[in-house]
Amino acid sequence: MRRVAVIGVGQTSYGLSPERTLKSLFAEAARAAFADVPGGLDPGAVDEAYIGSLSTGGSQLGNFAPLMLESAGMTGVSGRHVESACASSGFAFRDAYLAVASGAARIAAAGGIEKMSDLPRERTRSWLGVSGDVEWERLAGTNFPGIYAMMARRHMHEHGTTKAQITAVGVKNRANAVANPTAQVRKAITLDQALAMPMLADPFCLADACGITDGASMVLLCDWETARAFTDTPVEVVGSGAGTDFVAIHDRPSLTRLPAARKAACQAYAQAGLGPADIDLAEVHDCFTIGEILAYADLGFCDEAEAGRLVADGVTARDGPRPVNVSGGLIGKGHPIGATGTGQIYELVHQLRGTAREPSRQIAAPRYGLAHNVGGSGGSVAVHILKAAD
Amino acid sequence: MRRVAVIGVGQTSYGLSPERTLKSLFAEAARAAFADVPGGLDPGAVDEAYIGSLSTGGSQLGNFAPLMLESAGMTGVSGRHVESACASSGFAFRDAYLAVASGAARIAAAGGIEKMSDLPRERTRSWLGVSGDVEWERLAGTNFPGIYAMMARRHMHEHGTTKAQITAVGVKNRANAVANPTAQVRKAITLDQALAMPMLADPFCLADACGITDGASMVLLCDWETARAFTDTPVEVVGSGAGTDFVAIHDRPSLTRLPAARKAACQAYAQAGLGPADIDLAEVHDCFTIGEILAYADLGFCDEAEAGRLVADGVTARDGPRPVNVSGGLIGKGHPIGATGTGQIYELVHQLRGTAREPSRQIAAPRYGLAHNVGGSGGSVAVHILKAAD
Repeated sequence: MRRVAVIGVGQTSYGLSPERTLKSLFAEAARAAFADVPGGLDPGAVDEAYIGSLSTGGSQLGNFAPLMLESAGMTGVSGRHVESACASSGFAFRDAYLAVASGAARIAAAGGIEKMSDLPRERTRSWLGVSGDVEWERLAGTNFPGIYAMMARRHMHEHGTTKAQITAVGVKNRANAVANPTAQVRKAITLDQALAMPMLADPFCLADACGITDGASMVLLCDWETARAFTDTPVEVVGSGAGTDFVAIHDRPSLTRLPAARKAACQAYAQAGLGPADIDLAEVHDCFTIGEILAYADLGFCDEAEAGRLVADGVTARDGPRPVNVSGGLIGKGHPIGATGTGQIYELVHQLRGTAREPSRQIAAPRYGLAHNVGGSGGSVAVHILKAAD
Repeated sequence: MRRVAVIGVGQTSYGLSPERTLKSLFAEAARAAFADVPGGLDPGAVDEAYIGSLSTGGSQLGNFAPLMLESAGMTGVSGRHVESACASSGFAFRDAYLAVASGAARIAAAGGIEKMSDLPRERTRSWLGVSGDVEWERLAGTNFPGIYAMMARRHMHEHGTTKAQITAVGVKNRANAVANPTAQVRKAITLDQALAMPMLADPFCLADACGITDGASMVLLCDWETARAFTDTPVEVVGSGAGTDFVAIHDRPSLTRLPAARKAACQAYAQAGLGPADIDLAEVHDCFTIGEILAYADLGFCDEAEAGRLVADGVTARDGPRPVNVSGGLIGKGHPIGATGTGQIYELVHQLRGTAREPSRQIAAPRYGLAHNVGGSGGSVAVHILKAAD
């Protein structure tokens, strides 16, 4: 396999943009990525493109990739739409990585997009349910807040994790988002305020959940030799892993871990020749606060029983020894489903380059960053490890 | 890039199966593929899976890949859903090929599935329209029969192609399907009968179109060294190409050619070191009869102006010098959207192995087979060239 590096990243701001079209959102992210390559890159230079999206709100488009590509001046490029629920662009990134690693593509693009504001709010909730097991979960009356709430309750039961520890994830990530100019929720709250927010699904209150977001992101990858010609700060992809699981949680042996995440992390660590202790910062999938708690143990940052304390003790705070979700995560930055995976890569690349812009956001000289992107309640997971230029 | 071969193929019969579930269809195709590997293959041996589907009829599922994988005993495997409209599993096959070529996967699975009978017939037609340009074509009142009919009319105008030549594709492919036990439409008709069928969209009558089909298919790929350990008749993937185009046909310079198909074919021929004259048989995308006429020229089998005569003169008949759609094609075998691309590979692999079962179907000792899979009206196209074992 050839060595592969990221040479350009682009992203829209995350938020609600009901007046924007899918094409205009995607084009904005693509233009930003091409402009981010030192000296610029022509869209026609891309050999292979992978566009992550769960679906397209009310539009339900097919042949989705060529539509997005034409918005970005990339017509002709071999491209396809990749769907892995909320991990759609995590898998798009993996596939773009493999296309370059194989030698088939010199330059590949991985992007993601979702416009969630097209549907009325109640229909959005219903639509999101398609990423669970429709037959055994959605039709039985549960939804993602309910499914993740069961995971949270079980974590509290098995490990003594407290509601305050879980909700501390939401407080931390909202605080991180304040300094991120691309984030959707830029308002810090105290733990007391968070705990007093209206109940969503016991033990979750509104502070424990991400919202409804529109956005797009794109990442440009190429082989290592080409990368060095484009930029002095190529960010190498040193590990890529992915896994799947039963979609319905009742088919899994435990509610307090995600086997697909563990498989993906193992694969990425093994390829990179690294362990959890080598990771300087991580962007993880906190669609609900418990998601980040599960990620701590699934990624090997701590044991399951210690995960609640990790956040409560500040270990994963921006100024802690192992910052997690400096971007604000899905809860603070926002979660435009298909855009989230490559949006995580966007944040890591800027941190690893030292270009996080707001000085308060920049982690001091990180070497390795990890992205953890979960589809549904763990039915599909992609994990990537990136390395700063030497 | 590593050399890659197909070691197993499986498929359901194509037809209407309203009583079957998506999972049962996919599981049947997967089981057949695993059993097709000499000595059998354990589903857990697959490292990477790509599942092509436009959508899922009335179900609109997300996290589609893990749902299908669990039906086939492949839970855990890194898998994603690939959508490129009617070329979904053509692109899934390309991506599975790249995963093995890169060295990341030893064994990869490419599959496809569609259950079209879930929706009432009128809604199915409307749903198919999402693969065109919804904004500029579908909302303006046209649909795929209308779009392809415009291509046919233009071909008649520019090249003197006749309605009888175009409809001869439908007669040929129905005749080929009679001997194919997996085909949906196993009833031959004469050209006179075909021309007398009810009008669909001028110049098309019902004989010029494929129907509504349920089905699934799966293909197993691995590196060349591993392949030789599994089977004495590995079918090598010697060329892979893909391209996209503007989705709305009014954005394209011509209605009588598909630039995405020409780009994909060029790329596949160049990689294989072959030209059109080397191809012994082809499975091409005849969603409408004109689609096969366009393919003849897009693939370099003849000039545009000669394409109508190629079929009328029997050149592409099963016993002609260059058989096209021996399986019956989309018109005769059926077109379960997402399953079609890997279904074409299924047919080619059997022909190249000499195991087409019905003696009348088997082409004499073919060396190279080509698959041409089109998304929508040419917004995305994948072309692959396979080589028989020496």
